[in-house]
Order: sequence, then C-alpha cells, then structure tokens
Amino acid sequence: MTNPTAAMLVIGDEILSGRTRDSNMHYLAGELTRIGITLREVRVVADIHAEIVAAVRALSGRYTHVFTSGGIGPTHDDITADAVAEAMGASIGHRADAMALLQAHYDRAGLPFNEARQRMARIPEGAALIDNPVSTAPGFTIGNVHVMAGVPNIFQAMVASVLPKLTGGAPLLSQTLRVNRGEGEIAGPFGALAAEFPDLSMGSYPFIQNGAHGTNLVIRGTDPGLLDQAMVKLTRLFA
Amino acid sequence: MTNPTAAMLVIGDEILSGRTRDSNMHYLAGELTRIGITLREVRVVADIHAEIVAAVRALSGRYTHVFTSGGIGPTHDDITADAVAEAMGASIGHRADAMALLQAHYDRAGLPFNEARQRMARIPEGAALIDNPVSTAPGFTIGNVHVMAGVPNIFQAMVASVLPKLTGGAPLLSQTLRVNRGEGEIAGPFGALAAEFPDLSMGSYPFIQNGAHGTNLVIRGTDPGLLDQAMVKLTRLFA
Repeated sequence: MTNPTAAMLVIGDEILSGRTRDSNMHYLAGELTRIGITLREVRVVADIHAEIVAAVRALSGRYTHVFTSGGIGPTHDDITADAVAEAMGASIGHRADAMALLQAHYDRAGLPFNEARQRMARIPEGAALIDNPVSTAPGFTIGNVHVMAGVPNIFQAMVASVLPKLTGGAPLLSQTLRVNRGEGEIAGPFGALAAEFPDLSMGSYPFIQNGAHGTNLVIRGTDPGLLDQAMVKLTRLFA
Repeated sequence: MTNPTAAMLVIGDEILSGRTRDSNMHYLAGELTRIGITLREVRVVADIHAEIVAAVRALSGRYTHVFTSGGIGPTHDDITADAVAEAMGASIGHRADAMALLQAHYDRAGLPFNEARQRMARIPEGAALIDNPVSTAPGFTIGNVHVMAGVPNIFQAMVASVLPKLTGGAPLLSQTLRVNRGEGEIAGPFGALAAEFPDLSMGSYPFIQNGAHGTNLVIRGTDPGLLDQAMVKLTRLFA
C-alpha cells in the first residue's frame, strides 16, 4: 500500500522578501508524517493571481491533497480564495453560511461587519468550510485543495480540524543514529546498507560541532520491524 | 528598469518529513532582497532524480537565476549534481580541478581521499566552481543555476561567494507601520492607498498580542522617495 501524497502551497510576498520566516511548512510536514500522508513538494509563490492559479492547478492534478497557507484575510492583498476558485473552475461570491458566521462574530464583538470583513465570506461554490476557532473567518476545502490562513496559530488550528477528516496511510517512522564521524568516512558502508533495504529511505545529515565533523544517519520507513532490523545493522556498522 | 528574478530549489527529504526546519530559504530571501534580485518562487522537492531534473528545468527557463540547496555531499542520497547536469544537458564526471582541491584538503587532514569523498568532485562539464571555505567540497554554477550545499553555514558561505558576481538591481526597500487595530478595520483605506501607489507593493500582516488584534502594514518598493511619500500618507491614516 502506498501512502497518499500531498503538496503545500505557501502564498506570501512576506516570505519571499525575507521579512517573515515561514513556520507553517515545518508544522504541516510533521503533522502529515505522523498520519501517513507523504509531503512530496512545497512551493512558495508571490501574491500574484496568475501564479497562484497556475500552482494550484499543477499541484492539485499531481497529488492526493494540496494545502495552502496565506492570503485569505480582509485586505486588498488577500487574493487566494479567488485564485483557488479560478484554478478549480468554481464560481465565487459572498456565501450565506460564511456571512452568517462572521456577522454573528462581529455582532458579539460589537464591531461593524464592514465591506472588508465581508470579503472573508468569499468562498467558492461547492467548497466545505474549515473551522477557525481562533478568529472565526473560515478556510475551505474545494476538491482536493485545503485553503488555510497564514497566521501560524490559525493555520495550526485549521490543520487540526482538516486532518482527522482525511484518510492517512501508515505513519512514516524514522530512527536516527548520531555518529562522530564525517560523511566521507561512513558513505561507503551506509550506501551499501541502503541498497540492502530498498523499502526504507536512508539519509545522512552532516554537522560540525566544536570543530569536529559528525553525521546524523536517518532511516525512514513505514514498517517498524524492517526499520528495527536496519537499525541493528546500522548500529553494528558505526556505533 | 525591472530587477532580475530568482527562484530557489531546496532538495531535501529531511525538510519534507518535518525532521529538519529549513533556514536557507529565509537567509537567501534576505540577501537577494538586499542586492535587488527578486525572489519569485521557492520549491522544495524530495531526493528523487526525476523531480530535481524537472524542477531545475522549469525554474531555470523561467527566472534569471536559480539557487539550489542540498544534496551535494559524499553519500548515496546526494544526487543533486547529476540531476542538475541532466537538466542542463551537460555531461558529468570527476573533474580534475575539483579532484585536486579535495585531494589537497584530505592530504592536509591526513584522511583517505576515498571513493565517497571523490564523489564530491563530480561536477558538470562547463560549470564554474563555487568556493567552499568551510569544508572545501565546492558548489558550482552551470548556466543560470547555482548549486550549493544544504548545511546552513556552508550554504551561507557559498551565497557570499556567488552573489557579488551577479548583477543586481535596485534593492527592495520596505517600511513597516505597526497599528493596534485589526485588519478588518484598516483594510478599506489601506487598499485605497495601495491603489494610489501602483509602483509600490503593500501588504498587511495581522497578529494577536495579549488577546488584542494588531496589524503590521508593510510598504515595499525600490524608489526611496516614493516609499517615504506613501509612508507619510499611511501614518496620517492610522497613527
């Protein structure tokens, strides 16, 4: 059985300009790994309608799921919902269910439900709303595309509400052996071990600590027994 | 005058699995912004030959420069050099100049220059070496593709050696006004101001602090006079 696949699309001039450091990618990667969905690709694109449309089309045709972050707020630079609607061939307008949610939220807060705030009710036809327990304005799922906010705590809350609805696979497990040797010293036998276990993926990640070379050897796979077997051999080689 | 454009390609299973948090993207974004090269897209792909080839081809055809990080070490999972060679239609082998650099390095260290370490001398024909002051094994530039290591301090050293050779444009400047109001409150007039200055890019980034909504309003552009002009108007609107 092969695990379902996923891509992430980050919409954000503020990431590409270096002003903000993205943290949603790392969070989503960890959550998907845990439930057995394989994150295969991430793209970061600018706040440009045509770029978002093209990326959504490319990724949604290729992977089981696409997760987007960013660009669903009330300001003029929030253009994700319209771009996703176009990419998926859906019409978009102020949807009654989202309008009602937001109206109630601003009524409770004693704030005007003005034109800008109503923009956040623009949801493509046929999309299912994604709950936003932090600030109400919903994300949405249309086809295999899950559209979420960029603010990290809202993104995380939306991920928590979407993932339990998806069918995962076998969780991707990993074990790490840290060795105080450079990569060049372990590469030969490590590569041979990797060839011996074609169903596992083995990677080596060098580091320098106090001027000395070391390497983290990581074995990944979905079969815990096989992983243990490889780990025993790896430990015999280098520990 | 339009600034040159760039894309970044991160090669790394360890980022996609959530094991490692990428930091090279944020670093490169800041450096490119400073010298007036516009980072337009980032992709993260797995350690899979065909995926790297396809991404390099797509990005190198589309942008002035492509910067890659990761996958140029001595182990079996380091497949970037071969994939980039294929994408750029170049042959690849153990190049004499890189062999000499590495041989001298391992001789000085009293370590064997074994087969794995020799792998790091695999450089496409016609590529120019990128200096690695940290651990010698070079990166390379072929066509408009700059291939660099994934280890952050080596990546940064390679960026420092590549960027001075490139023709930048006008540095992208930005100014930020932090307001203690939610996005929904400022969106209308902020959008109108953005429409008034089509040569600037304006973005709004909400945050919640101590339970209260606030927004960072960011204006970006290459013309400092125009930026000041817009900033004065922005401050009058919201300060």
